[in-house]
Amino acid sequence: MEFGYDARTEELRGRLLAFMDEHVLPAEPVFAEQRAAAADPWSPPPVVEELKAEARSRGLWNLFLPGERGAGLTNLQYAPLAEITGRSPHLAPPALNCAAPDTGNMEVLNEFGTEAQRKQWLNPLLAGEIRSAFAMTEPDVASSDATNIETRIERDGDSYVINGRKWYISGAMNPACAIFIVMGKTDPSAERHRQQSMVLVPRDTPGVEVRRGMRVFGYDDGDHGGHAEVVFTDVRVPVENLIGEEGGGFAIAQARLGPGRIHHCMRLLGMAERALELMCRRVVARTAFGRPLAAQGVIREWIAEARVEIEQLRLLVLKTAWLMDTVGNRGAHTEIQAIKIATPAAVQRIIDRAIQAHGAGGVSQDFPLAELWAAARTLRLADGPDEVHKRSLARRELRKYA
Amino acid sequence: MEFGYDARTEELRGRLLAFMDEHVLPAEPVFAEQRAAAADPWSPPPVVEELKAEARSRGLWNLFLPGERGAGLTNLQYAPLAEITGRSPHLAPPALNCAAPDTGNMEVLNEFGTEAQRKQWLNPLLAGEIRSAFAMTEPDVASSDATNIETRIERDGDSYVINGRKWYISGAMNPACAIFIVMGKTDPSAERHRQQSMVLVPRDTPGVEVRRGMRVFGYDDGDHGGHAEVVFTDVRVPVENLIGEEGGGFAIAQARLGPGRIHHCMRLLGMAERALELMCRRVVARTAFGRPLAAQGVIREWIAEARVEIEQLRLLVLKTAWLMDTVGNRGAHTEIQAIKIATPAAVQRIIDRAIQAHGAGGVSQDFPLAELWAAARTLRLADGPDEVHKRSLARRELRKYA
Amino acid sequence: MEFGYDARTEELRGRLLAFMDEHVLPAEPVFAEQRAAAADPWSPPPVVEELKAEARSRGLWNLFLPGERGAGLTNLQYAPLAEITGRSPHLAPPALNCAAPDTGNMEVLNEFGTEAQRKQWLNPLLAGEIRSAFAMTEPDVASSDATNIETRIERDGDSYVINGRKWYISGAMNPACAIFIVMGKTDPSAERHRQQSMVLVPRDTPGVEVRRGMRVFGYDDGDHGGHAEVVFTDVRVPVENLIGEEGGGFAIAQARLGPGRIHHCMRLLGMAERALELMCRRVVARTAFGRPLAAQGVIREWIAEARVEIEQLRLLVLKTAWLMDTVGNRGAHTEIQAIKIATPAAVQRIIDRAIQAHGAGGVSQDFPLAELWAAARTLRLADGPDEVHKRSLARRELRKYA
Amino acid sequence: MEFGYDARTEELRGRLLAFMDEHVLPAEPVFAEQRAAAADPWSPPPVVEELKAEARSRGLWNLFLPGERGAGLTNLQYAPLAEITGRSPHLAPPALNCAAPDTGNMEVLNEFGTEAQRKQWLNPLLAGEIRSAFAMTEPDVASSDATNIETRIERDGDSYVINGRKWYISGAMNPACAIFIVMGKTDPSAERHRQQSMVLVPRDTPGVEVRRGMRVFGYDDGDHGGHAEVVFTDVRVPVENLIGEEGGGFAIAQARLGPGRIHHCMRLLGMAERALELMCRRVVARTAFGRPLAAQGVIREWIAEARVEIEQLRLLVLKTAWLMDTVGNRGAHTEIQAIKIATPAAVQRIIDRAIQAHGAGGVSQDFPLAELWAAARTLRLADGPDEVHKRSLARRELRKYA
Repeated sequence: MEFGYDARTEELRGRLLAFMDEHVLPAEPVFAEQRAAAADPWSPPPVVEELKAEARSRGLWNLFLPGERGAGLTNLQYAPLAEITGRSPHLAPPALNCAAPDTGNMEVLNEFGTEAQRKQWLNPLLAGEIRSAFAMTEPDVASSDATNIETRIERDGDSYVINGRKWYISGAMNPACAIFIVMGKTDPSAERHRQQSMVLVPRDTPGVEVRRGMRVFGYDDGDHGGHAEVVFTDVRVPVENLIGEEGGGFAIAQARLGPGRIHHCMRLLGMAERALELMCRRVVARTAFGRPLAAQGVIREWIAEARVEIEQLRLLVLKTAWLMDTVGNRGAHTEIQAIKIATPAAVQRIIDRAIQAHGAGGVSQDFPLAELWAAARTLRLADGPDEVHKRSLARRELRKYA
Repeated sequence: MEFGYDARTEELRGRLLAFMDEHVLPAEPVFAEQRAAAADPWSPPPVVEELKAEARSRGLWNLFLPGERGAGLTNLQYAPLAEITGRSPHLAPPALNCAAPDTGNMEVLNEFGTEAQRKQWLNPLLAGEIRSAFAMTEPDVASSDATNIETRIERDGDSYVINGRKWYISGAMNPACAIFIVMGKTDPSAERHRQQSMVLVPRDTPGVEVRRGMRVFGYDDGDHGGHAEVVFTDVRVPVENLIGEEGGGFAIAQARLGPGRIHHCMRLLGMAERALELMCRRVVARTAFGRPLAAQGVIREWIAEARVEIEQLRLLVLKTAWLMDTVGNRGAHTEIQAIKIATPAAVQRIIDRAIQAHGAGGVSQDFPLAELWAAARTLRLADGPDEVHKRSLARRELRKYA
Repeated sequence: MEFGYDARTEELRGRLLAFMDEHVLPAEPVFAEQRAAAADPWSPPPVVEELKAEARSRGLWNLFLPGERGAGLTNLQYAPLAEITGRSPHLAPPALNCAAPDTGNMEVLNEFGTEAQRKQWLNPLLAGEIRSAFAMTEPDVASSDATNIETRIERDGDSYVINGRKWYISGAMNPACAIFIVMGKTDPSAERHRQQSMVLVPRDTPGVEVRRGMRVFGYDDGDHGGHAEVVFTDVRVPVENLIGEEGGGFAIAQARLGPGRIHHCMRLLGMAERALELMCRRVVARTAFGRPLAAQGVIREWIAEARVEIEQLRLLVLKTAWLMDTVGNRGAHTEIQAIKIATPAAVQRIIDRAIQAHGAGGVSQDFPLAELWAAARTLRLADGPDEVHKRSLARRELRKYA
Repeated sequence: MEFGYDARTEELRGRLLAFMDEHVLPAEPVFAEQRAAAADPWSPPPVVEELKAEARSRGLWNLFLPGERGAGLTNLQYAPLAEITGRSPHLAPPALNCAAPDTGNMEVLNEFGTEAQRKQWLNPLLAGEIRSAFAMTEPDVASSDATNIETRIERDGDSYVINGRKWYISGAMNPACAIFIVMGKTDPSAERHRQQSMVLVPRDTPGVEVRRGMRVFGYDDGDHGGHAEVVFTDVRVPVENLIGEEGGGFAIAQARLGPGRIHHCMRLLGMAERALELMCRRVVARTAFGRPLAAQGVIREWIAEARVEIEQLRLLVLKTAWLMDTVGNRGAHTEIQAIKIATPAAVQRIIDRAIQAHGAGGVSQDFPLAELWAAARTLRLADGPDEVHKRSLARRELRKYA
């Protein structure tokens, strides 16, 4: 259980921190202006492409991807880097080509794709030339239980025919999002976890209708491609577009979720640090009733509790990363659930208090806090609500006494 | 301490419930469509005018205003009616001409205005022909401490000259918002609570710049005129535009806040009831892991706790209304603070759990929950953050033992 | 919904407050000394008998009992009086002959007893000459589900024969506790809620073994007779000792619980007021780091939140009392559950914070706080754990949407 | 940051776990019986001496003490061992001669004592022949602020003369407690943190009055010597009894607190594990309303949250131990405060829920839960209330932005 940062991590941290200070943080106001003035509300502002070029030239590219196609970092090496990107979560992850859902999609193609699939879709994704989407969640069922999924993927000769409705398909409003990975049922009569399959559906396939952008507490998240409602009506793709094998969809989804969850939690830590920093700066600068806010007891409780919680969360995330590296994602299953339960809830509370310390500014567009809050709150639902994970973790704990 | 609903209240409740069922709730989807399609994002959708006409014809008009110019209800009579409007907070309050900030502004003009001021501004407000704004909060200071306010109102001959910057001026983005009540300092050297005055500033006065709409967790609240940042540069109005006397601004603001706070709390109860109803409907209809959500223990805890909290809050709000009616707003000071502390926080939590029970739908635009949440959360800041009220209430409690 | 105190209530409040100030509060240190020095740890210290005589002479006697055998108060009239006794919960309720479990037992005998039963047991209880116990809870089953009860009451000729084990039988360690009301099953094959019956078992009946005193967080509560484990082995009583009818035990238990719960909640409010007063007195008197504790923000939050919660709880308790008076205990079922859910949990938190403000003194025997805390905490379990009540209340709420 | 257990730790863990299973846990009921039957309520039951002999023979002795006089473990090595002893906190720590306050006192003598002091007092303590007490807390002042301490230690020729009143002096009711380390002021006019000194006061010195045992939520903790109120009246000891130098008392107290706090937190983790295990065993075994408690949603939330919290706390404790080992106690100051803030509060909540799952049994003497709870709760006060630590930690955090 060695969590220290090794030499490579330290070197990359230094490089990334410099990039944040010199490019990302200064780009935040530019980004906000371009976003407000954008003709197309669903594409990233142009400053993001500039940041991508700069990051790539600095060797800060595809850090999330283990193995030879990516930067080859372990989870433990990537964790502190991902945390840093969380401090500017709209700019830094896409700048480094480390933004969800592309990261997960690239992992799927890297691990389960055929050579042809990788050539056609993984390469341009790794190059940051196209974006991608992952179409799993459905509006009409509790999708946290994957056996509820209703989208059908039916074999018809050399094709699969897809029918179904999805929503909250992140990134899919972006016209540059060229490829969808779609989860659906190929065999509803099979064993519960063998009914689902995944297929690649190019955006321009007839029958794909990207209907509207879903909101998250008023935000459309247009700068990273929004969250689309997508309807698939008799969409036909060649059987070569199957990822892995028929009936393998559930297993691929599970494999995809582990890294996805820990990346979210790493970035959440950066969001919490950003919020805590903003809170501290605010309360030393602002005065009410004759004393700086920082001299008022409740505020100090908030700051202390935030610091203590962040320290605990970070250690649990690092331990999880270390476990994933040493015993694999399955062996780290309990810890992955634990960080998914603990991190969004705690970070949401930390940001909420930072908002409170900012008064009206806290809920406004002039500080990043309200938007960070919405992101953290939503992660208590994304990839399954907290309650599903707690239920599952408790069941494993109880098994010791059965 | 008699909280029962008297005959007039019962009669009006019946009439209002019918109006809600027959007109307001059916208008909600129309409202959403018109809002999405609006050319001007800052004006109420046309359906609101239809509802206003209908409400007025049914005698559901200006219910908030005591005395002969309004419906003449007591606070205790108005409370259950305001609660009902909270179930559809974007539609019902404006339909009844009972929406903030016009209600508070009409109260100010009713109580402190001159005959000329009432004729020019109160009458069209009572008729629902114009809207108004209340310009108090400033971005650069902790405005919960009114002595911090920096806007200057300087006497110059027969005029007052106003300079300052305000934000979160609700309703002011609406072009129909014709008049601003502006709070500023006429005499910074006077005793702490005698430095401030209020003046009427017509929107079209030279030097008034309505700069931009502030957001609330991503929402611009355009349908009720948004929340504007407004800059006043050498704005000149005749001295007749002073409300009350010079140095009386703080006292008027205090007088305005009491009813404002209780109205907010009443409507919050309706919002909580709406959220609880949506949660219940959802959990009986949706299944996960083989059982309806309603059969799962945590959900039941949420429902029970919501019901118990709503009952307690309603009684405290009713007692406060009764006290305001019997001993006056000053005599009800502690209770007004108590409901301001208790209600938004509890209702926010209730709505949050309803969101959680809805999964992704909960944060979306397809259910009213996320927007209700943002409103409740913001009320933990508006009119002073919770912490300021707790500090003040505790000080009064401690005085018993000094 | 009229909660005001009527003339009789006001008159009795005045009388009771005087009794508290003149006799009960001054008796507290005497009581503590006598308790520490007692030869028999299970009997009330002698000062209690003196207080009883004084209370009776002042007409403060059996206030809990409606109808002609008691003081004839409504629940709404009794509520504020019971609250006052909660400020000194070890002394005031027994002084007024209003202490659990005797109150509930007297109600049962009053409502369901035969003339002979009332003569033999109710009269000396009303006179404060004997004490009584209610033997329902069993160690081996979840007794919150009454159908789990395992104690058998079997008819054998003109007798009932009782076998079973009970615990937490409050008051039963007191040698003056002369009579037990025992709940057991007469017909395990009957319909779920018709299996149970109640019989009167005099303490000196052969086969009754009062085995030991159970503890509550280290307290033995000896001064009010402790909480006994009692074993019944072939205990034989005449059939005349049946209360009500065979199979009527569940219904009697339900009837007994309503008033019992509201009395607990009323007294809890007094306990909360006592804790809040002690906290306030402490924090104005004690200094740390150069300022009185009262000047420190967190303490003020605690005080404000305590005051706001107490106000809400009191109103809900009063409404429940009023409902019980006007629509009966069954009609007030939801509210009775609501106060049982809300009151102990909130009061426990208030006392906990008062403890924290007292430092080591808070957990000691030198202040009543730790013992008050233990009582409040235990009421989250007594008469069914919170979770059972929430489950039931939620089920009723959901029924509206089924 | 390497937290893994090294070979020596693993070896000792194995040995300690065997000792727990074979001796300590089986001794618990014996201990309870002896305690209940004890003639002297303030001495450990005889079974403790048997366990001490067994532990010593197994090489499980003085594990807490670094350096050559103790077992020579690092904090990181000792942490998992101390956690294990926390599972039976009344038996295991004294069995291993690793119980507070002796541990802290031995550390003080080891680090700051003279050769003569060590010979006279440290040696018999290390041998487990005598017990000791640490007399710091005073009833009349907020002792969390050490500058408040009122006990005087005045030089008079070759003696120090001590006058003052202390309370909650743990262990001091035990007649075997032979020596007190007393904190008092030698020079009230010196700089704030140079006023205090520590002296050794043998129990049998004239003027030492051990007045009474203080309670903790009803418990007298007699089995480990209780918590005494001790009055010092003109107590005279030779100047050789000074520990360290005059004015060095505050610094020694600080040095003593670091290890003391981390040991408490380690044991608290074991207490939490014990509570969680008891909760799990209970809920799989007990049925209500037709299903095992374990199948009921809220219980599962409790179990999951407990597991997640314990994992986080353990990592933070381990990191703190590692820091103390690598950068020293001062360098680990923030982390020591962080675990002191986080651990007792979380463990108290975990135990509270385990109590709730046990019904009446949870608050009784038949399960260890209520007593564990009282210990955890009290640790939110001991060594300074949570609020003091939060205030201090926040101040350090804010310093970054000053």
